[in-house]
Amino acid sequence: MQDSEIDRRYAEARRIAAEAGALALDYFRRFDGLNVEVKGHQDFVSEADKNVESFVRKAIAAAFPEDGIVGEEEAPKPGASGMVWVIDPIDGTTNFIHGIPGWTVVLAGAVGRNTEFGVIHDPNHGEMYHARRGRGAFCNDRRLAVLSGRDLRRGSLGVGFSGRTSAGGIKRLVPAIIDAGGIFYRNASGALSLAYVAAGKLLGYVEEHMNAWDCIAGQLLVAEAGGVVEDQDAGDMIARGGRVIVATPEAWDEVLAIAEAAYAPGQD
Amino acid sequence: MQDSEIDRRYAEARRIAAEAGALALDYFRRFDGLNVEVKGHQDFVSEADKNVESFVRKAIAAAFPEDGIVGEEEAPKPGASGMVWVIDPIDGTTNFIHGIPGWTVVLAGAVGRNTEFGVIHDPNHGEMYHARRGRGAFCNDRRLAVLSGRDLRRGSLGVGFSGRTSAGGIKRLVPAIIDAGGIFYRNASGALSLAYVAAGKLLGYVEEHMNAWDCIAGQLLVAEAGGVVEDQDAGDMIARGGRVIVATPEAWDEVLAIAEAAYAPGQD
Repeated sequence: MQDSEIDRRYAEARRIAAEAGALALDYFRRFDGLNVEVKGHQDFVSEADKNVESFVRKAIAAAFPEDGIVGEEEAPKPGASGMVWVIDPIDGTTNFIHGIPGWTVVLAGAVGRNTEFGVIHDPNHGEMYHARRGRGAFCNDRRLAVLSGRDLRRGSLGVGFSGRTSAGGIKRLVPAIIDAGGIFYRNASGALSLAYVAAGKLLGYVEEHMNAWDCIAGQLLVAEAGGVVEDQDAGDMIARGGRVIVATPEAWDEVLAIAEAAYAPGQD
Repeated sequence: MQDSEIDRRYAEARRIAAEAGALALDYFRRFDGLNVEVKGHQDFVSEADKNVESFVRKAIAAAFPEDGIVGEEEAPKPGASGMVWVIDPIDGTTNFIHGIPGWTVVLAGAVGRNTEFGVIHDPNHGEMYHARRGRGAFCNDRRLAVLSGRDLRRGSLGVGFSGRTSAGGIKRLVPAIIDAGGIFYRNASGALSLAYVAAGKLLGYVEEHMNAWDCIAGQLLVAEAGGVVEDQDAGDMIARGGRVIVATPEAWDEVLAIAEAAYAPGQD
């Protein structure tokens, strides 16, 4: 696919993320006054999730009918253009459900092994994080850079955990971070945490298994902001998901060693 | 001290918190565009912290010159009225420094062993959490209640850690939460986490040692929202700080058992 065609999609992705974010935020605010336990709450959340996803899929299909779409909720939509959109309409659903303003709208575009653009939109704070491969990472119009000169002892390391992996990994990871003199941070939104690494708010992020829709946008952001990123084969990530490790250059070796030791098989 | 006198202070505390929050938010937004590494950054943060603390102390002293004031930054100001203000002008300083919108302005008022009122103001989200002993907890004008019917497996448990305790406690605590089928959450602001418990956003919070200015406001909020709170002797907390454990009634027994096992002495 030609660069200009990718650029059109990058621009459209930001427009779609802005609209989807406004839609999700409207649900979030209407819901925030409700008691989490009241009957109908679960239905309300499901409706929000479904409607935001539906909006995003329709907007992409209308603008680029030949593109593929992959996401958590629905079956993949095959495409013929070579571009696959990888979407998570609301990343950080647990936060969304509980009224915590830590969730994002995530869109990425991949061609073969490359993530060409990524958008992580945080509508609660009016912050749209976005990157185009080879052209840098931004929050709104501001260029991003990872923390510089920060090893593991001089910043917070984001961690994530899901039921897709055994519990042993996270149980070894957190104590190892503490033993190394670091501190962990878990805000229950992997995409937002990756955006925070790109923006110099966290010094890295580690999770044993993430799906492509939760991570490839953020991995591109971190790489374009000068961070070190393990594994950038978008095709593999779409097929299987995988381990995600990102960090500042100064923290990288130690973060990688800690993660590899924690996640090494045969320990559980 | 008469109830009406305490009520006057409760109202004034909310007014002071609103103004201090606006002042801190102005610093935070001006700073957010700066690179964390640029020379002078540390000076800027110190100035913000100092000026917000100074504003709060002056406002209290002007309105209630006979009251005592205790906080992290300055020596305690003794008082003759029986009321001691316990203040943390910016709780979550690491978030503040790194541009993460997870920090609060905290004010509490204690008479003897009782925390009479508590205010935790989150200016980034326009949420003022507040409680008066015996009269309920609120976010702005909305009455708060802890999550109901939620044990440890049905919600996130906030955790905190500081260098005031050995690393062993948190290293045992996090794996124990996972083993029990729960999940931890660490947003690097203890006061905000306690407010989240009161508001039904987290199901509990555990930290091995907190200072009074970080916790007594939040402990009162949780208690007034129907949660279970360990240790409410404000005088002891002002003198020494202490272990903080709060949870929903359904999660309490298990959270307490996990924390006691993790923090039991003689294991390091």
